[in-house]
Amino acid sequence: MSLLTVGTVAFDDIKTPFGHAEKVIGGACTYASWSASYFTNDIRLVSIVGGDFPQDEIDQLHDRGVKTEGLEIVADKKSFFWAGEYHDNMNQRTTLATELNVLADFDPVLPASYKDSQYIMLGNLTPEIQMKTINQLDTDPTLIVMDTMNFWMDVAWDALIEVVKKVDVITINDEEARQLSGKYSLVDAAAEIHKMGPKYVVIKKGEHGALLFSEGKIFSAPALPMSLVKDPTGAGDTFAGGFIGYLAQTDNVSFENMKRAIIYGSVMASFCVEEFSIEKLKTLDKATIDARVQQFVDLAAFSM
Amino acid sequence: MSLLTVGTVAFDDIKTPFGHAEKVIGGACTYASWSASYFTNDIRLVSIVGGDFPQDEIDQLHDRGVKTEGLEIVADKKSFFWAGEYHDNMNQRTTLATELNVLADFDPVLPASYKDSQYIMLGNLTPEIQMKTINQLDTDPTLIVMDTMNFWMDVAWDALIEVVKKVDVITINDEEARQLSGKYSLVDAAAEIHKMGPKYVVIKKGEHGALLFSEGKIFSAPALPMSLVKDPTGAGDTFAGGFIGYLAQTDNVSFENMKRAIIYGSVMASFCVEEFSIEKLKTLDKATIDARVQQFVDLAAFSM
Repeated sequence: MSLLTVGTVAFDDIKTPFGHAEKVIGGACTYASWSASYFTNDIRLVSIVGGDFPQDEIDQLHDRGVKTEGLEIVADKKSFFWAGEYHDNMNQRTTLATELNVLADFDPVLPASYKDSQYIMLGNLTPEIQMKTINQLDTDPTLIVMDTMNFWMDVAWDALIEVVKKVDVITINDEEARQLSGKYSLVDAAAEIHKMGPKYVVIKKGEHGALLFSEGKIFSAPALPMSLVKDPTGAGDTFAGGFIGYLAQTDNVSFENMKRAIIYGSVMASFCVEEFSIEKLKTLDKATIDARVQQFVDLAAFSM
Repeated sequence: MSLLTVGTVAFDDIKTPFGHAEKVIGGACTYASWSASYFTNDIRLVSIVGGDFPQDEIDQLHDRGVKTEGLEIVADKKSFFWAGEYHDNMNQRTTLATELNVLADFDPVLPASYKDSQYIMLGNLTPEIQMKTINQLDTDPTLIVMDTMNFWMDVAWDALIEVVKKVDVITINDEEARQLSGKYSLVDAAAEIHKMGPKYVVIKKGEHGALLFSEGKIFSAPALPMSLVKDPTGAGDTFAGGFIGYLAQTDNVSFENMKRAIIYGSVMASFCVEEFSIEKLKTLDKATIDARVQQFVDLAAFSM
């Protein structure tokens, strides 16, 4: 089924204990689209870049089945740029620079061919842009997934809540779930967030896995313990891309299938962190992904 | 099979956001023994208390199949006492008082009837006491499990390493695994700890579950997301008691059975935190435990 992804396409500068990646490809929409492209080939990207963004990268997305009619290119401006450094064993990151550039003017316009999209991935952006995307859809989509973060809770609470009302799935981390709900227990937090709108609450816990809550049911997905995490940037977006990509491929939004989608998202995120930027995500194939899925199955399996 | 547990039997004073439990029953050996008693009824307790410890509590342990010939009672002294307060949503605790009392003189002597014990649980105590316990065993036990903590790594490294060499299983938390191994990645940490002796490394991650490592194999056990955690005291000891209690009951130390033991340990810990002290652990029965096991099965189950 068709999958619309809206979010940033950008440059990153990333320092980790394993090296320094200068002006590499980044952006939530980039990670999510690459990740989803292993599951479905009708992906419709909505974003904005400057004239400095390499055409070759856009071509590579095309080759993966990602339509870029909705990618606005502002020739005389620069792409969004983020620079950050990871420390304390990757558990903390410091933002060194944020240059909005073209992102300051981003007013997403959905091409006519996008307006019947059935699966919608709202990347972490201002709630206004997320709402504008939803409002341009012609047909009632099968599933809307939103990612967001604590920043929008701090600076745009009311607009955020309006978006939360309209989505089926929200993906946030544990601290964000607590902030959004005002509840400490994640069970209570999910129950509170259900009341705000989303039928499904996905709580991303990084190296501790993910939790899926829906109508009193809970699924706990493991994370793969890894020897080497080279660059955590984009892991959450890659997770979201694998998650919704698998749902779009299978066109099944049952709780059981959502569980599989969580595993595929976790699998894709586990690849993402093995190399800087989207490098690892460019090299995958079905056999490699299937083998990693089997690792997750073995990791979590027990019989009583 | 026979199970020997050595550790503290004590009084606690516990403050949490849910209340203040004054001079309640505590101690690693108490929690572990109560927990294990739901799996096996040949438990041999080794500990020390003062004349102030209630005989009724000892009688209740007897009724659960816990032999207390190895419980030294020093009539004119006081039992070990710990006071602590939990804050920041139970993630931090402050020790308010530690009175060693009888524990300062603890020199464990195994009764003759204990010396053929097959399953050995070395609770978190000085490495010297752990080693003295091992050295008094007559027969080669099936499995020795040790719990320890960062404190012993700081103050008794060499003695600790000697104990680590002799045990089959070590149970520690993620930070302790990192400190013991000098490795940040838990995969690398477990590999390093295997080299020190233990064939099995169990990493307790509290609300994030537990990991079992052995010879390149990994099992990730979920924790049950809970609405109410009233008192986390003793959860790790309760986990250890359920873990080794199940192994002693089934007398099977294969990786597959260790996985089940981890689930039973996690199940028992999930009960422990629902009430102060050992109160909840006194009220369980097989049906209640089985129902909670099924919750864990449902929580982690997925099919790809």
